[in-house]
Amino acid sequence: VEGRVVVVRSWEELGPHVRGTIVLYDVPMRGDLPPRVAYGQVARFRVRGAIEAARHGAVGVLVRSLTTRSLDTPHTGMMRYEEGVPRIPAAAIPTEQAARIARLAARGEVRLRLSLESRTRSAVPSANVIAEIPGDSPEVVLLGAHLDSWDVGCGAHDDGAGVVQVLEAMRRIRALGQRPRRTIRAVLFSNEERGLDGARAYLQGFGRQPHLAAIESDLGGGLPLAWAMEGTPAQRAWLLPIAALTDLPVDEEPDSGADISVLAAQGTLLLGLRPDDTHYFDVHHTAGDTLDKVDPAALARGASALAALAWELAQAPALEPAR
Amino acid sequence: VEGRVVVVRSWEELGPHVRGTIVLYDVPMRGDLPPRVAYGQVARFRVRGAIEAARHGAVGVLVRSLTTRSLDTPHTGMMRYEEGVPRIPAAAIPTEQAARIARLAARGEVRLRLSLESRTRSAVPSANVIAEIPGDSPEVVLLGAHLDSWDVGCGAHDDGAGVVQVLEAMRRIRALGQRPRRTIRAVLFSNEERGLDGARAYLQGFGRQPHLAAIESDLGGGLPLAWAMEGTPAQRAWLLPIAALTDLPVDEEPDSGADISVLAAQGTLLLGLRPDDTHYFDVHHTAGDTLDKVDPAALARGASALAALAWELAQAPALEPAR
Repeated sequence: VEGRVVVVRSWEELGPHVRGTIVLYDVPMRGDLPPRVAYGQVARFRVRGAIEAARHGAVGVLVRSLTTRSLDTPHTGMMRYEEGVPRIPAAAIPTEQAARIARLAARGEVRLRLSLESRTRSAVPSANVIAEIPGDSPEVVLLGAHLDSWDVGCGAHDDGAGVVQVLEAMRRIRALGQRPRRTIRAVLFSNEERGLDGARAYLQGFGRQPHLAAIESDLGGGLPLAWAMEGTPAQRAWLLPIAALTDLPVDEEPDSGADISVLAAQGTLLLGLRPDDTHYFDVHHTAGDTLDKVDPAALARGASALAALAWELAQAPALEPAR
Repeated sequence: VEGRVVVVRSWEELGPHVRGTIVLYDVPMRGDLPPRVAYGQVARFRVRGAIEAARHGAVGVLVRSLTTRSLDTPHTGMMRYEEGVPRIPAAAIPTEQAARIARLAARGEVRLRLSLESRTRSAVPSANVIAEIPGDSPEVVLLGAHLDSWDVGCGAHDDGAGVVQVLEAMRRIRALGQRPRRTIRAVLFSNEERGLDGARAYLQGFGRQPHLAAIESDLGGGLPLAWAMEGTPAQRAWLLPIAALTDLPVDEEPDSGADISVLAAQGTLLLGLRPDDTHYFDVHHTAGDTLDKVDPAALARGASALAALAWELAQAPALEPAR
């Protein structure tokens, strides 16, 4: 497509004047907030930018990459279309290029020809990878991460780190040589990035089994700092002395993990490993998300935390959650 | 060209076994040394890598980018050929790709097809930009930086920062409204990157004029930390009280600046602004060397230092250097 560029920094700046244009969402990710909070503020422009611009007649969309660090690096990721709204092309561009186009547009008319080679191919069969250490009770403590990664990089942090931590945590638990009270189950989910298909398939296959708790690691391999928790006050009261054994604090917040979120409806206690994410969004969904960015010592600390929490949850006295 | 990859980490590892192969210089730039020192240790592989590999019959060369920070980012720069040695293609590749090829090569044979689109075009006329504030004496105090940049980025740090600092320093000196004792001359050199043509042309045109001192800023726009100095003990003794007025220490070291180095033969006191270069080689010769990487406050501090030193050198009592 080709058109004049209109630079916007909020949904409110969209309007009839963007008809026939290419909309550039030039909203810098803030560097003065916790990175995952700052990311949460701007992700909407990548996820829904094409829909909202197309509603007003735009013919294409450019999105400033969601990062505070760039070496002329596109930071890519999921975007949505909606029934009944034209599917216009959308591209994530490096922060430097977004800033350049915005500077030029402030001085005069900028016209762009947007030529994208990306295609959405038809779906193919895939599978979750599941393994468990059986316990005396059929109750499940789930340890999860996701196998897929965004296509530009190899996904070392997102979510290779989580996958390795789950494998290592299971290895350590098995090395204890003890049968746990509850079943500890590792789930490496398929297709988290493009729509949680693996998580939904897991729910369909195993959702009727009782899941006491589910823990996810999907914020990279940084030093573990806290557990994110979603649950009832009763679950929280039950969890706190258990989590204390991992030496990490518990934060109540509503995003413990994308894959395990499908278990919320059955009242499962949801937990997310919160590592230091200072540099996570530097490489997130870029060609730079490679193994050299992962600190083995920090990664191992996360695996230890997962192993300890999963084991203690599996052994803890019964909880009757208030559902 | 096409060939098997041989990974080497020193000149000594070259030998008859690289005949017909593509040599990968996979030498990481050290992160535990001052960046410009670490760069100096490994730059030889980019500059002379093609020559040394071709001597042993290699058909192509890959060089691990000279940086400690990469988002799959090629860090490019000058390389040389030599009379009588075959001119084989050479490419700088991201550290991540170099590490990947090295990992694969450690496990088995890696073959590569190297297809480069770069060309060396014929030379075209260019010019240095020269301006001066005339003094009572014909002696010159030179303030220099270079106008050109490596092609991948816009050269914000290398050497846009130096150019802006020289312009700003001259503006401040002019704003004093005083005629200096000696002539203060700003020189924005052409073609530093590809062979110092501008510096040589300057020497040819102005080298017979007496140059008391020359100062160069070509290490980026970071916070100024010191002056690098090349000169005699007498020049040093004369300089120290003058430099003290800029509140920056003087380091004797042999690399005050590439452009002004052509004045060494006439005994000019050579000085280089040494800024904090912690992040200079993150962007050096990459598409990420853009204005957003420059801290305006640090840049301004460098301009102040240049203005102060140039003015004081122009006003100082006479020096009769021991030549």
